[in-house]
Amino acid sequence: MTQRLPFSCDYLQGCHPAILQKLSETNLEACDGYGSDPYTLKARELILKACQLENGEVFLLSGGTQANLIVISAALQRYQAVISADTGHINCHEGGSIEAGGHKILALPHDHGKIRGDDLEKYMANFTADANNEHMAQPAMVYISQPTEYGTLYSAEELKKLHQICRKYGLLLYCDGARLAYGLAAKDNDVTLPLLAEFCDIFYIGGTKCGALLGEAVVFSRKGLISHFFTTTKQMGGILAKGKLLGIQFATLFEDDLYLKVGQSAINYADQIRTFLKDNGYQLFFDTPTNQIFIIISDEKLKKLGEKVSYSYWEKYDDQHTVIRLATSWATNAQQVEELLKVLKEI
Amino acid sequence: MTQRLPFSCDYLQGCHPAILQKLSETNLEACDGYGSDPYTLKARELILKACQLENGEVFLLSGGTQANLIVISAALQRYQAVISADTGHINCHEGGSIEAGGHKILALPHDHGKIRGDDLEKYMANFTADANNEHMAQPAMVYISQPTEYGTLYSAEELKKLHQICRKYGLLLYCDGARLAYGLAAKDNDVTLPLLAEFCDIFYIGGTKCGALLGEAVVFSRKGLISHFFTTTKQMGGILAKGKLLGIQFATLFEDDLYLKVGQSAINYADQIRTFLKDNGYQLFFDTPTNQIFIIISDEKLKKLGEKVSYSYWEKYDDQHTVIRLATSWATNAQQVEELLKVLKEI
Amino acid sequence: MTQRLPFSCDYLQGCHPAILQKLSETNLEACDGYGSDPYTLKARELILKACQLENGEVFLLSGGTQANLIVISAALQRYQAVISADTGHINCHEGGSIEAGGHKILALPHDHGKIRGDDLEKYMANFTADANNEHMAQPAMVYISQPTEYGTLYSAEELKKLHQICRKYGLLLYCDGARLAYGLAAKDNDVTLPLLAEFCDIFYIGGTKCGALLGEAVVFSRKGLISHFFTTTKQMGGILAKGKLLGIQFATLFEDDLYLKVGQSAINYADQIRTFLKDNGYQLFFDTPTNQIFIIISDEKLKKLGEKVSYSYWEKYDDQHTVIRLATSWATNAQQVEELLKVLKEI
Amino acid sequence: MTQRLPFSCDYLQGCHPAILQKLSETNLEACDGYGSDPYTLKARELILKACQLENGEVFLLSGGTQANLIVISAALQRYQAVISADTGHINCHEGGSIEAGGHKILALPHDHGKIRGDDLEKYMANFTADANNEHMAQPAMVYISQPTEYGTLYSAEELKKLHQICRKYGLLLYCDGARLAYGLAAKDNDVTLPLLAEFCDIFYIGGTKCGALLGEAVVFSRKGLISHFFTTTKQMGGILAKGKLLGIQFATLFEDDLYLKVGQSAINYADQIRTFLKDNGYQLFFDTPTNQIFIIISDEKLKKLGEKVSYSYWEKYDDQHTVIRLATSWATNAQQVEELLKVLKEI
Repeated sequence: MTQRLPFSCDYLQGCHPAILQKLSETNLEACDGYGSDPYTLKARELILKACQLENGEVFLLSGGTQANLIVISAALQRYQAVISADTGHINCHEGGSIEAGGHKILALPHDHGKIRGDDLEKYMANFTADANNEHMAQPAMVYISQPTEYGTLYSAEELKKLHQICRKYGLLLYCDGARLAYGLAAKDNDVTLPLLAEFCDIFYIGGTKCGALLGEAVVFSRKGLISHFFTTTKQMGGILAKGKLLGIQFATLFEDDLYLKVGQSAINYADQIRTFLKDNGYQLFFDTPTNQIFIIISDEKLKKLGEKVSYSYWEKYDDQHTVIRLATSWATNAQQVEELLKVLKEI
Repeated sequence: MTQRLPFSCDYLQGCHPAILQKLSETNLEACDGYGSDPYTLKARELILKACQLENGEVFLLSGGTQANLIVISAALQRYQAVISADTGHINCHEGGSIEAGGHKILALPHDHGKIRGDDLEKYMANFTADANNEHMAQPAMVYISQPTEYGTLYSAEELKKLHQICRKYGLLLYCDGARLAYGLAAKDNDVTLPLLAEFCDIFYIGGTKCGALLGEAVVFSRKGLISHFFTTTKQMGGILAKGKLLGIQFATLFEDDLYLKVGQSAINYADQIRTFLKDNGYQLFFDTPTNQIFIIISDEKLKKLGEKVSYSYWEKYDDQHTVIRLATSWATNAQQVEELLKVLKEI
Repeated sequence: MTQRLPFSCDYLQGCHPAILQKLSETNLEACDGYGSDPYTLKARELILKACQLENGEVFLLSGGTQANLIVISAALQRYQAVISADTGHINCHEGGSIEAGGHKILALPHDHGKIRGDDLEKYMANFTADANNEHMAQPAMVYISQPTEYGTLYSAEELKKLHQICRKYGLLLYCDGARLAYGLAAKDNDVTLPLLAEFCDIFYIGGTKCGALLGEAVVFSRKGLISHFFTTTKQMGGILAKGKLLGIQFATLFEDDLYLKVGQSAINYADQIRTFLKDNGYQLFFDTPTNQIFIIISDEKLKKLGEKVSYSYWEKYDDQHTVIRLATSWATNAQQVEELLKVLKEI
Repeated sequence: MTQRLPFSCDYLQGCHPAILQKLSETNLEACDGYGSDPYTLKARELILKACQLENGEVFLLSGGTQANLIVISAALQRYQAVISADTGHINCHEGGSIEAGGHKILALPHDHGKIRGDDLEKYMANFTADANNEHMAQPAMVYISQPTEYGTLYSAEELKKLHQICRKYGLLLYCDGARLAYGLAAKDNDVTLPLLAEFCDIFYIGGTKCGALLGEAVVFSRKGLISHFFTTTKQMGGILAKGKLLGIQFATLFEDDLYLKVGQSAINYADQIRTFLKDNGYQLFFDTPTNQIFIIISDEKLKKLGEKVSYSYWEKYDDQHTVIRLATSWATNAQQVEELLKVLKEI
């Protein structure tokens, strides 16, 4: 059987070769467990340095839903709630995880996956003015994602505005960076790691979708923001005995800017595909600057495409058209893109 | 700096070389995510076959605390509780995980880490007879570990008795097999995988401590025992996007009986060390048939030992003696054991 | 100080005099605790009879938020969610109770406080068709209120349609009847208690707002729908030692149709007020058939009104107008209404 | 049918006549809801005064299990646990409530229902010394009851010692006073309300078993100890719309020292019964100074007793004897005691 071209998502392959090599080299080295190994230590240092954080903290977790669940559960008191775009990953595709952890998600309408500052300001002003708000779950955190679930990006200006509103109302700002590498590498992106660290109280740097086998690095912009985070993580099943598995991967990703490089390659291919699509009469559902490409395609063409390319179904557009997503990743190569374009031309 | 001899626990190194090789070979292969890859499929088949289960189900999770939390939470209704030995891992060293998931642990006194059938029978008879038991959390599951936290083993006879009491009172029997490979390989062990599958409703086959980088294989002895286990796992942060990372490891461990072999090697070395200790005037805290060795040692000797060997502190024995634990693993080799015995002789 | 006229809500006074008398008569009578007293038994019988339920069950709880929390928590598995109108009481004014109990609320847009059958059908059709829905909390119950938070009523036809959609998709239908007495008594209401019992799996008959000091009667339309409901109620702090306090109240309310009478009196006064308002140039925010009246009033008039009448603020209408709520109750009397109308005429 | 003499527990009857009268007098008075009525305000003031607390806070809840659940859930962070005697009510008879709220109970062996200071000190010293204690739920509160579930009392000296150990290790001390009136009135009791307020961070004054229809007054010894307690209470279903029902009862109980008087009467009768028992050859299971009396009685006599007296089964003593509990209450009267003694004499 011929394998279809892998463009359905960005977590299809294993890990970046540099990580595999490091895992091999260190395989039989004995290290202390639970994140106290030297690789985890090194990863923490490299990440804090990349974020220009002098007083920050880093914890390595296994996956995105896990990171969101543990961070949000640990940060909120039991009477508190988290604000999210209605399209937020925590609100849609994590099995009711945040609520199972005890917290309400207060969903705001999204703008291409983003929360508008004005909507947040208005929501908080109304809540604060409500004389009966002690009968309601208390908003205490804002959850955003960069890039968003729609592949869009907050600008530095937009992020700053959210930051200021959060400060004004005593809210924590938390950013889900599952695909952060692809955001950092996007053309015109002006939200760097240090800037993310300045404007967010907590964020995570995605590994699973950005070159690692598994792993997300949760960054707290100041030490002691959350007490006993290790115990909460243990309690929620998030501590790996062989913590070095995560440490080695992030130490590798943050050495010599590898994390930026894996993102850049994916973005270059995605831009190439987007240009091709526009030049060849394809209609984008909306334009995106990152590794996710959303296309409106006729069902007839889609059938043919599906024979040769693995893609993600997004939603029905109309009776005869469908919205699909193609995604590049660190593992995408020139030959795959060439073949994809050929297929897109032929169908 | 000279590395100390690694005998403190069984999760110090990476993974068995056969696993590393398979991870390398398949690294750039694109696979569907979330456990729908062919390696996970194969691992499931091999495990069911090894357990002689025709109608069972297997789910691959990342770690022991996670497996216990998700299995117990998924299996119990919110008014139900789980019975454990007071020394049970869930009762002592998992950060209050089960309770954070909403369930009470009903602790029975242990016998070298094991629950006595008679104690369980008596407890359930009393509960059932109590006219006010609707005011109490309802016992619905028994949690055991094989080997136990004390390195001891249930015999087939003992397991069968627990099984029968569980049937009588409508309790699920769940076995934590974090170190199962070392139990299966122990001399005189008569609890095989098929027998475990016959007597337990649910158990997990430990990977993290038995040759894998991470991973535990949860086995349900019959399909449909727990509804929507995938969603519950997702909700609790236990689904890896790159599920093949777990699939490849367990497929490798269960091909050509590798899982039995990694256990056998560790047991052989542990037996060798135990024999040496007895022959050389050391006192065992109690005798164990698996890869964990408990020694009562004078504080003076301990100080010298600690300079060359990494061990685990267990508890104070008296003013001048301490109980320590040494553990072998799949990664232990002849040279390390030789050097350990040399140190034990000299101090 | 002169007391303002009490129209802000329907829980300002104590209990119906017939209840107070019965509490006095039985005060020193010794009864078994926790709901096993003869009055609770009698209340259960009378309620089942009024609902024409031969195989139903009744549990008496203390308050509405408590009833919603315990019923929904007890009925749902941990991977399940409840569908509600976005204006549903559980979604807005219960402190995040359902989520703190572990369950996501899936909010549908409301139509004057009601869920449209078509919206529900569409939502469930989409969910069922979604290939990735195992990554999402599983909808398992629909929460409605009768009357709604906006004082509106489902017709028998609308309720039947919701019932049929719930059957089709395996959803439980649960109705919050905090103000049910006022719904039952409303002109043109065609949803009787037996009909409610036929179309809903679970509902509660409100006591607190309908003549009792406290208490809500949860009705299960068939026995055994929920296992160990007593233990779950105990666990969530919902069992009163002196259960007869609830039993006496509901036994009184359901003897000689008192429950219908207390509602009728409130509706008559509300209708009288509504007629007056329309005849005197007041604008209703929207028309309602129950004991809640929503008025758009100029801020100038509102200031004067507030000096003599206690009302509820609802929301700002525009720069110079406000929406307020007036509520009648079983305790409203002719003199109070007369004085209210006088005030409304004068301001 | 002749009613048996009511000595099985202290929550059989309604409320003290003074409360009933006040409820009657105020029944039709309109009051704001949710605890903002003048009676609740007055009750809070009277209680703080009785406790000599200048900076304390009082919240009125409905029942004991509810109070324990809400207080402990609100006071603990999610990684924290509560220490209790193994016989503690929260550990035995509240349906797993604390665990359902997410927190582990760390059970210490009891001494007639009490925690020994030395046991607590030793437990905390061990925990603090354990290098791996970050893998464990963190003890943060000590739960005691006064009187205990065994009817015994802590002395001021014992309470002070617990207080000091709690201070040393940063633990909150919380006292369950479900039967506090009977403790305060006991001969030789030296733990007054002000002293309880001095040594405990939080405690509750029992109403349900001490003269009220329902209600427990939670006292925080300093304001702001717990943030947003109202919202947490709302979230857990503990807010009554008609808060005045609780306010009126506690305002009555704390006017003119009624709370002390209702306890005194019960203690006098209990002492009279105990003296009689000793004088007439009955054997007490152990001696208690409060309203609960534990008797070892032959099964033959018990059968006869049960025909005329309602009692509580406690446990089997041996093949031919049983331990039972008799309880007096505020509602016990001279005639009932006289008849009881007559029965005890005759059987």
